[in-house]
Amino acid sequence: MANEIFICHNCPMTRTMATIGTKWKPIIIYTIGLKQQRFGLIHAKMGLISKKILTEQLKELEEDGIVKREAFREMPPRVEYTLTDKGLELLPILNLLTEWNSRHHQADFK
Amino acid sequence: MANEIFICHNCPMTRTMATIGTKWKPIIIYTIGLKQQRFGLIHAKMGLISKKILTEQLKELEEDGIVKREAFREMPPRVEYTLTDKGLELLPILNLLTEWNSRHHQADFK
Repeated sequence: MANEIFICHNCPMTRTMATIGTKWKPIIIYTIGLKQQRFGLIHAKMGLISKKILTEQLKELEEDGIVKREAFREMPPRVEYTLTDKGLELLPILNLLTEWNSRHHQADFK
Repeated sequence: MANEIFICHNCPMTRTMATIGTKWKPIIIYTIGLKQQRFGLIHAKMGLISKKILTEQLKELEEDGIVKREAFREMPPRVEYTLTDKGLELLPILNLLTEWNSRHHQADFK
């Protein structure tokens, strides 16, 4: 049992949730998807998130190598985000999650 | 664009995160796994979660049809949890997430 506790503190699931385990991060990753997206568009698509929280979450995703930020020296300044290879690998997994939800969402309303 | 905003508010990803998008829930699902597990054992395996939070999270997972709770009329009382079919379907997806993490966790330390 001591071994199991040790495993759980260090397990990939715990590490995964430390990386993407917020309500917003998977939605941000899903919203960026395969495109290069402007900050304002990500914010508009997500709708319910504040700009402050979105900025913080994107910064953490960038620090974890999931999102790449590119700032263009224009007037007005333009900042765009893409998923890195590491981030792109999450898309099919997040798709499985949404398929799981859709299956049961339909079932719940039958 | 108005259409995209509409999609995002109602999209399966947003609904999925409303269901399992807390730091703890995927770890709880992963910890219960294929077994019928006592509350105390889930708590011990997870280690860092308080009993109060674990109780709340399990209750929400039960309400969302992901976890089944069984109380045995014994002294001392025994409460055990299993995943429902809906919950079991999440296991292979969570496994993909942990594999993703393990791949990059190793890469980050190379």
